[in-house]
Amino acid sequence: MIDECYVSAANSVRARARISAHIYVTPCLPSKSIGNELGCTLHFKAENFQHTGSFKLRGALSKLSTLCANQKVVTASSGNHGIASSYAASILGHNLTVYLPKNVLPQKLQKIQSFGVEVIIAGDDAGHSEVIARAAAEKDDDVLYVSPYNDADIFAGQGTIGLEILEQVPQVDNVFISLGGGGLVSGIGSVLKTFGDGINIIGVSAKNSAALHAAIRNGKVIDVDHLDTLADGVAGAMDVGSITLPIALDVIDDLIVCDEDEISASLKMLARKEHQIVEGAAALALAGLVQQAEKYRGQNNVVLLCGANFDENKIIPLI
Amino acid sequence: MIDECYVSAANSVRARARISAHIYVTPCLPSKSIGNELGCTLHFKAENFQHTGSFKLRGALSKLSTLCANQKVVTASSGNHGIASSYAASILGHNLTVYLPKNVLPQKLQKIQSFGVEVIIAGDDAGHSEVIARAAAEKDDDVLYVSPYNDADIFAGQGTIGLEILEQVPQVDNVFISLGGGGLVSGIGSVLKTFGDGINIIGVSAKNSAALHAAIRNGKVIDVDHLDTLADGVAGAMDVGSITLPIALDVIDDLIVCDEDEISASLKMLARKEHQIVEGAAALALAGLVQQAEKYRGQNNVVLLCGANFDENKIIPLI
Repeated sequence: MIDECYVSAANSVRARARISAHIYVTPCLPSKSIGNELGCTLHFKAENFQHTGSFKLRGALSKLSTLCANQKVVTASSGNHGIASSYAASILGHNLTVYLPKNVLPQKLQKIQSFGVEVIIAGDDAGHSEVIARAAAEKDDDVLYVSPYNDADIFAGQGTIGLEILEQVPQVDNVFISLGGGGLVSGIGSVLKTFGDGINIIGVSAKNSAALHAAIRNGKVIDVDHLDTLADGVAGAMDVGSITLPIALDVIDDLIVCDEDEISASLKMLARKEHQIVEGAAALALAGLVQQAEKYRGQNNVVLLCGANFDENKIIPLI
Repeated sequence: MIDECYVSAANSVRARARISAHIYVTPCLPSKSIGNELGCTLHFKAENFQHTGSFKLRGALSKLSTLCANQKVVTASSGNHGIASSYAASILGHNLTVYLPKNVLPQKLQKIQSFGVEVIIAGDDAGHSEVIARAAAEKDDDVLYVSPYNDADIFAGQGTIGLEILEQVPQVDNVFISLGGGGLVSGIGSVLKTFGDGINIIGVSAKNSAALHAAIRNGKVIDVDHLDTLADGVAGAMDVGSITLPIALDVIDDLIVCDEDEISASLKMLARKEHQIVEGAAALALAGLVQQAEKYRGQNNVVLLCGANFDENKIIPLI
C-alpha cells in the first residue's frame, strides 16, 4: 500500500508544476489564541483564502490541465467543486457542463454561471447529481465524466496543499482534515506520509454525513444515512469502489466524529478568536482538535480550513 | 526631503534583520470579491494576522532591539502599541512600564498584563496617557520614554511591511493606509517611495479623529477635536513637532476622509465578502478605496489591514 501513497505523492509534485501559475499559495496562519487556550502550537492552513474560496480549485486545475482543451467534460457538485471546475475551465478554455442538485445554494449557482459554463440542475442531492452526470457522460463517447474526488488527478491536486504545509511549518506533528469523499485527505495524506517525517493524519467527520468514516471502519463503501449538516461542503455519499478509500485507509492515523453543536461552536471560535469566517466543513476540522485537545496538547497541530463558501443566512447568525 | 525618506527606508531594511525572527510575514491576500465589484485588482496586506493582532509589533520589536535589555522603558498606548510592546519586552527581556488611559478596553488591558509588564492606568485618553508617561520618564535619568509613533526606530519597524509588499505583489499602483500618528504611513511610505516604482500612497483618516490629516493640510501639528470613532486604533492627538509629519508630507500622494458609516459599511463588507473580521482602523483603509473607487478603477490596489484587536460587543453586531 506504501506504493500507492508514493505514486499519489509523486503525482502531487507533478500537479503542482501544472497548476502553480493559477493557484494562490495560501498562508499557514499562526493561531492568535485558540492554540494557547488548548495548550498546543496551532497553525491554520487557510484554503478559505484560495481563489474560488476553497481547496477544490487545486484538484480541478490539476485534472483539466491533463486534458486537451477541446475535450468535453462533465462534472457534478454540490457547489465548491462546481465553482472551482468552472473557474478552472474558464482559465484553461475547456468545454464544461456542471450538474448541480436542486438544493444548490443560490449564491453558488450564480457564481458557477458567472464563469460561462453550461449548468444542468438535476438530482435531489449531490450524490444523485453525480449519478445523473455520469450516466449522461457514458452515453456520449466524446464526453468525459470527472468525479469531484474519485480521480487520481483530482486528489493529486489537493495534495499540493501538503507540499506547501511541509515548506511553511517547520515542525508538524498532526494535521486535522475534514472528511468528505476522501479526495482531500488522500491527496494531502499521501504527500505528508511520503515526504514528511512522522506526521499524523487525523480525519474529522460530521456525524450527520460520515460516509468515509463508515467506509474506513468497514473496509469498504457502505450505505449510511445523510442528514443536514453545517459541514455541507463535505456531505454526501461516496462511489462504491472509490480509489480514495485504500489510500485513506493507509494514511489516516485517527478518526474523530463531531456533531452539529461542535461544528457550530468551532465556527464561532474561529470568528471571535481567529477573526475568520469559514464554511462549516472548515470549522469541522477545528472541532475535531477541540474535542480531542487533551490528546494533542503540547504538540504542533495544523488544522486545514478547507473553504469559505457558505450561506450567509445560516452562518453569520451563528458567530 | 528625499534624503529623510531614503534614510528611513534604509532603517527599515536594518530593522527587518533585527525583528525577522520574531514577526510573522503576513500574507497579501488576493481579494475574493470586493476587487471584482470595484473593478480593480485588490490585495489585503493582512497585519490583522500578525502576532499580537496588529502591525505595532514590528515597531515595538524594532525599537526595543536597539536598546540594552537592562534599559528601563516607559511607553503609553490606547492598546495595540501597548500589547505589542509588552509582547516584545517579554521576548527580548526588557523592563517595561505601560501607561494606559482610563478608557482602555478590558480585553486589551488583560492581554497587556498577561505579558508580565508593569501597567499604570493614568489619563483620560491615549494622548493624555502619553503626556503623563513622558513626564514620568523625564524625571528619571534611567528611564527612556518610547513614543508609539514619533520615533525613527518605531516607524522603521512598520516600514518592514513595505518591504514585504514589494516582494509579495508583483505590480502595485496604490497602497491605502489608515492614518493615526503617522508612524505607519511614514514607515511604509518611505520604503515604497525609495524602493518601489511609482507607487502612490493614499492616507485615509477617520473624520472623527483626523490629527495627521489636519497637520498635513496645515503643514504643522494643530489641535483638532477628537470624537469617538470605530477606528479607535488610530484615534488621538499627535506630538507637536512629530518627526513623522515631514515624512508623511513627503510620501503621501492623496488624502481621503471617511465617516463612521463608511467605516461600519467597510467592516461589514470585509466580514461578508472577504471573510475577515478586523478592527475599525483596518476597515478605515478599505473605506477610503471604496469611497474613491472610480478614481482607482482598473489599477492594482493594496489595502493595509492594520489589526484585529477589537471590542467584540461593538464590532460583531455591525457585521
